[in-house]
Parts: sequence; C-alpha cells; structure tokens
Amino acid sequence: MRAMNAAALRVLVTGGTFDKTYDELEGRLRFAQTHVPEMLELGRSRLAVVVETLMLIDSLEMSDEHRAQIVAACRAASESRIVVTHGTDTMELTARALHAAKLEKTVVLTGAMVPYTFGSSDGLFNLGSALAFAQALPHGVWVAMNGRCLRGDRVRKNRASGVFEELE
Amino acid sequence: MRAMNAAALRVLVTGGTFDKTYDELEGRLRFAQTHVPEMLELGRSRLAVVVETLMLIDSLEMSDEHRAQIVAACRAASESRIVVTHGTDTMELTARALHAAKLEKTVVLTGAMVPYTFGSSDGLFNLGSALAFAQALPHGVWVAMNGRCLRGDRVRKNRASGVFEELE
Amino acid sequence: MRAMNAAALRVLVTGGTFDKTYDELEGRLRFAQTHVPEMLELGRSRLAVVVETLMLIDSLEMSDEHRAQIVAACRAASESRIVVTHGTDTMELTARALHAAKLEKTVVLTGAMVPYTFGSSDGLFNLGSALAFAQALPHGVWVAMNGRCLRGDRVRKNRASGVFEELE
Amino acid sequence: MRAMNAAALRVLVTGGTFDKTYDELEGRLRFAQTHVPEMLELGRSRLAVVVETLMLIDSLEMSDEHRAQIVAACRAASESRIVVTHGTDTMELTARALHAAKLEKTVVLTGAMVPYTFGSSDGLFNLGSALAFAQALPHGVWVAMNGRCLRGDRVRKNRASGVFEELE
Repeated sequence: MRAMNAAALRVLVTGGTFDKTYDELEGRLRFAQTHVPEMLELGRSRLAVVVETLMLIDSLEMSDEHRAQIVAACRAASESRIVVTHGTDTMELTARALHAAKLEKTVVLTGAMVPYTFGSSDGLFNLGSALAFAQALPHGVWVAMNGRCLRGDRVRKNRASGVFEELE
Repeated sequence: MRAMNAAALRVLVTGGTFDKTYDELEGRLRFAQTHVPEMLELGRSRLAVVVETLMLIDSLEMSDEHRAQIVAACRAASESRIVVTHGTDTMELTARALHAAKLEKTVVLTGAMVPYTFGSSDGLFNLGSALAFAQALPHGVWVAMNGRCLRGDRVRKNRASGVFEELE
Repeated sequence: MRAMNAAALRVLVTGGTFDKTYDELEGRLRFAQTHVPEMLELGRSRLAVVVETLMLIDSLEMSDEHRAQIVAACRAASESRIVVTHGTDTMELTARALHAAKLEKTVVLTGAMVPYTFGSSDGLFNLGSALAFAQALPHGVWVAMNGRCLRGDRVRKNRASGVFEELE
Repeated sequence: MRAMNAAALRVLVTGGTFDKTYDELEGRLRFAQTHVPEMLELGRSRLAVVVETLMLIDSLEMSDEHRAQIVAACRAASESRIVVTHGTDTMELTARALHAAKLEKTVVLTGAMVPYTFGSSDGLFNLGSALAFAQALPHGVWVAMNGRCLRGDRVRKNRASGVFEELE
C-alpha cells in the first residue's frame, strides 16, 4: 500500500458549479479560474497532484467534442489515477464516454451542488472523497458524489432530489 | 463493488481539534457537541452512517483507558467499516492500539489541524477522504490526513510541519 | 444619547443581491427568504428591530409602483429610523423617490455587492454600518455602502467600479 | 454632511478576540497580525482609513500603561475620528480612561465575541457599525457592540450574557 500514497494524481478541471464564482460587477455566476489549488491547500493536501484546466464550462454546454477532449486528456495523462471535476447535470454522459474508452486507469468524476465559494458548498467534501477513491479504487470509471462512489456506466443524477444514484 | 456503497459505516467521535468550538462567554476553545452530523449534511452525504460519540476530549488528555475504550467500540460495532475522529497530537498512539487489536475491520482515523467551525479548517476535506478510504480500503488501520492514507502502524505526525508521514 | 439606543428601528427588506441564495436544484441564484434576522443574530444585535419583508426582487425589476410601495411603507412605519435593504443597481432611484417624499424620518438604504450566503460578501459589514447610521444620523435619506454614508439625492453607483459615489 | 464622508479615520488596533487566530501547529488561539485591513477589503470600504497596530494583546492582560498608551495614541492622531479595536473583557476600563482624557475627538471602541476567522464571528458587523458611529457621532467616547452605541463612561459588559449594557 505504500506505493498508493506515492502515486501521482492528475486533476482534470472542466468547470461546473464547483468552480463558479460570483461576478460582483455583472451580478451573476461565471467562471474565472479553478479553485482546486486553493481547495488542496485548505485540505493541507500533501498528495503529488497535477492540476490541469481542460475547460471551464457549464456541463449543460458540454458537447461530444468536449467529452472527446476529456477522454483524450485522460488517455494522454502519464498518471493512472485521475480526478475529473465536472458539472453535475451531464456528469453521467461524460462518465459513460470515459467508460466506453476502456482506459487502464482509475478515473473518478466529482463536482458540487453549490459553488465552492459559497458557505454551503459540498465541494471540499467531494474533492476529499474523490481524491481518496482515486487512490484506493481499481481501474474503472467512478462518480464520487454524496460521500459515495458509483459505477460510471450506471450512474445518474436524480434531478428531483439532486442526489446521484446507481441504476439497477 | 455495488456492495461497497450499500455498506453501513460507523463514525466514532472522540473529540480533537476537529470538533472544538469557540465558547464566546469563556473566550476559549472547548467541546460542545460533535459537528459530524452537520458536516455530513453539508457534504450532501447519502451514506448509511451511524455517528456515535465515545468521548469529546483533546487527544493530549487521552489515556490508555480511553484508547482501550476506542478499541472496544470498534470491536463491538456491527459495521466492518469505521471512521474514528481524533485529535492529531496522539492519533498515532490510537492507531497503534487499534493495529495491535487485529480487528477484521477497516478502521480509518482522521482529524483536523483547525477546528471545523473556523473558515480555514481542513475538517470537511478530511472527513470526505476518510469516509471514502473506509469504503474502499481492505481491513486494517489507516490514518487519513493531508489527502493521503497512511498505515496505522507506521504513521507519525511531524510536529514541526503539522504533516502526517509514514515511517520507513 | 441614551434615547438613541432605545429607539426602535425597522428594516424594510426589498431583496437585491444581499438576499439572493443559490438554488442547488435549479443551479441558479434566486430569492427564498431574507437573511436579515440571521445576520442580526450573527452580529449579536440587541437593537429593537422589526424586520418587514416588502418584496424580494432584483432591483433591475423594480418598477415605479414598487418604489411607491417602499415610500408608503416608510411613511406608515411607526419607527422614525428605517433601514431599507435593496439591490444596488437601482438603489439611487429609490433613494431619490424617498428623498422626494420628504419624510420626517431617517431612512438608510443599503445592499451588498455579493450575496450574504457567499464567503466574500460585504453584506454583514454593510448591515452593521446601515443600522449605525440609521441610529446616529438626522432625518433624511442616506445610502450606506462602502463604509460611507452618501446623500440619497446625490448618490450614484459607478457601474465600472461597483463603488457608490456622491455627485458633485 | 459631505465633509463627514471625506473625513479621515484612524483605526487603532489593540488585539482582543477580534484579531485572534488559530495556530494550527500549537493548537491554540494566538495573535499573528490584525485582520482589519482584510475586513475593510471584504466590506469594500472606500473610507480614508489609517490602520495602526498599537499592540496585539488579550484585554485581560492590559495594564494601566497599555491604557495610557492608547489614550496617548488617540491624542496624537491627526484624525478626529478614531475606532479602537479591543478585547471585550476590559473594554469598559479603556473607555473610562479615554473618557477621563477629555479629548476633542470621537473615539469608538469595538471588538468581537468570536474571532473574525471563525464563521460565527460578529466582528465584521461590529467593525461596520463602529466605523459608521465614528463618522456620525459627536465628540466623546463610545462603545459599539451588539449593533448599539453606548456611552463610554457608563458601559459595562454583562459577563453572564456577553452583552454590553449601559449603566443607569
């Protein structure tokens, strides 16, 4: 197990609620830059993590091309353990695209229901759990939300409750 | 892996910085009640978790009797996956006591460098990672701090840096 | 000056950024209920304050009828010291409407550049200063923003900087 | 009233709960540096404020010499409007010392029941109200706590409730 802790991780940032911030001049939520490095610092993380911002978009605006870009970035990464931060609305579609790619890697998608910059955000909790699952789980595609880890090919977001579930 | 998500977890609360709060009449830090349920709510946790407060003490005040009580509670728990929240100063001693008990369970100790009620706390990140490690790791005693998971029989806190390390 | 402290105050809530909250199911900012009572509690306020929610709207949606309603509520209030929470975009228009009404009262408008529920909000600072100005200033209409108090008939929001200024 | 807003203010920092921070290596509250500049930034303050740190001590450790130093700094200040941040435990003693000095200035003492770095702090609210009272009130010594402004020669902290009151 010692190798587990030494293993390098990559965090691929794609945007989503997780990284939205409040633009006080425009009076609306928008993307500026990712909060992941600041969150790792808050968590006193000593993991060897490379943070790479692939895109900063709302997942409702994510196209097949965007998903292909995410799959390609996971394939190209030198690390075999990857966390992908992602909007919750279409996380299941990206999880399926990654699952179909059959990478020999552990890929964990996570996000947040509330922006990290809000007091009520689940982002820090989710990032902590996603990084842990990425270190401990075998190869495959997983979604880390609600403290749980769900299979990437079976996950869906329950839009009424905001909770991620696994299909039967 | 589906069974993993369904597995019940127990969180054994022992106190530590994690749960300290500021007593505004006394002007000092003290324990009131654990923040774990509130933190699980903030993390939108949907895990089946039982939270049990064993004690609420500073880990510098923890005696061999206290440690025996923690070991006994882990042994008595019906769940095989357990998170123990603990002060960081003597977490390594409790980890060793749990290791020596050779329980057929996955026990993950975690804590915080800064109380959860402070803005700068690592507590929520640590709780997220500890719950994930508790679900995903095999039987054994582990310490989840700094985003990492260290072996309970080899961990120590570096007092100069505040970082948890694994002994060679 | 003792009477000053005993004086009852009314807070008239109209909405604005101040009171916006993040709807995690819809993924957007919206109004739920005012945060003013919670903010007064956080400030350990012992003022005799009546909080009255007149409306909860974005100030860009505020019509002449809404402004007439605010003027009428200030006139009808039994308190002579009133704080009006308001969106910043059209705060100057409501200030002018109140000024034109020539009430024999001290009316202080305030708001926030960032919702109170965000960590980076100026809301608590502004509410503290508005309540203080409402207690200490003579009759008239004032805008409390940026730590300052500006004359209601001369104030404007500088849209480029987000700062409230007084016209020459 | 325009001159009021242009008036320069001085904030004299003396420490107190307001400015305590959590030392995560030592596991206790201590003073590092004042948070007043950061708080002014959070409040989007555009006041002309000079922040001067006189001392950073718990007010229970404040001696007559310390109080003489505070009085001297108020007297020496070129500004006639001054906010003094102070621990709550002996704020009333410093207020009396300042009152006895009969300065031709408006001096407002404020503090916090909970450190600013805690989520539950009243500090930002109190700073907002203290700066407002300092701008708006006539010469004299005042204590701004609990949203109210109390006379410096008559104030006392009710130790059972933590609330500042004015003596009959």
